[in-house]
Amino acid sequence: MEFDLDQAIAVLARTPATLRTLLKDLPRDWVETNEGAGTWSPYDVIGHLIHGERTDWIARAKIILEHGESRPFDPFDRFAQFEESNGKTLESLLEEFATAREKSLAALRGLNLDAAELDKPGRHPELGKVTLKQLLATWVTHDLDHVAQIARTMAKQYASEVGPWQAYISILHDRKPQSSQR
Amino acid sequence: MEFDLDQAIAVLARTPATLRTLLKDLPRDWVETNEGAGTWSPYDVIGHLIHGERTDWIARAKIILEHGESRPFDPFDRFAQFEESNGKTLESLLEEFATAREKSLAALRGLNLDAAELDKPGRHPELGKVTLKQLLATWVTHDLDHVAQIARTMAKQYASEVGPWQAYISILHDRKPQSSQR
Repeated sequence: MEFDLDQAIAVLARTPATLRTLLKDLPRDWVETNEGAGTWSPYDVIGHLIHGERTDWIARAKIILEHGESRPFDPFDRFAQFEESNGKTLESLLEEFATAREKSLAALRGLNLDAAELDKPGRHPELGKVTLKQLLATWVTHDLDHVAQIARTMAKQYASEVGPWQAYISILHDRKPQSSQR
Repeated sequence: MEFDLDQAIAVLARTPATLRTLLKDLPRDWVETNEGAGTWSPYDVIGHLIHGERTDWIARAKIILEHGESRPFDPFDRFAQFEESNGKTLESLLEEFATAREKSLAALRGLNLDAAELDKPGRHPELGKVTLKQLLATWVTHDLDHVAQIARTMAKQYASEVGPWQAYISILHDRKPQSSQR
């Protein structure tokens, strides 16, 4: 499937409501547990998504448009949420994410990107040359990765409770922690 | 996390709305594509979930309560949706799933299960002895497995479009098709 801006926005616009529907008012045991040492809870993931809205996607798009390959992106802090979410309820984080995403998509639409701009290259500090279109496609897959992560993390809370069915529920076997992460 | 009926129902009750929020009115390219030969599209998954409501979870719970281990469950048809969904829109399937799930949860609540009943064993045709509690825990993880599958399948549609970021988006590397499935 080739990248299409409207199709990408269709997914990006749904993520906050999808996560709110999945998580809001759930018992805390479902949302504050993770997949093991070094992994994130659903609560942690929402904070990470908020930080991305603030510092990653639109900020990087603007760096590409303004500076091209001459200025590498600022590195993204993958652990910012552990401080920034501190003391906030899941409900307030879900609202914060929805508001931040709306603002990001308004900014994205406001850029009125044409095909030449979508192909414009920028520089990732580790990955090297990347295009604006690749950045936006990554934004979409990053959302979906974290939706799947939240579902997987919740499922694993019942890994023992399913008994013999553990053999049939594939998600219980995905992303086994590496020995170094234990 | 130990199985708790109210906590399980909290998840089961959300799944239809979560999937509706994620999928309704999305461009067809997102919902009618799969992860490769022998895998399912989001559209296929919704049909599979409907079939489960009709023939699996509550039906098996009743077999356990009425017959214990003396009568094995009927085998579940993992491919029924390819015929049953035929000609239906995604929107009608999403509504059908929501209605079927509501009915299932009303039936579950109507059983007024106590601790002894939750521990009652039944017989799975392949897995052998399983308890009612394990069946219900499996129902929850099965929902979450398919939520994650849908997100993963959608993400993979942009596997090429993300360019060098493919290395960072872990979900693009989950469940690589086996050589036999190619």
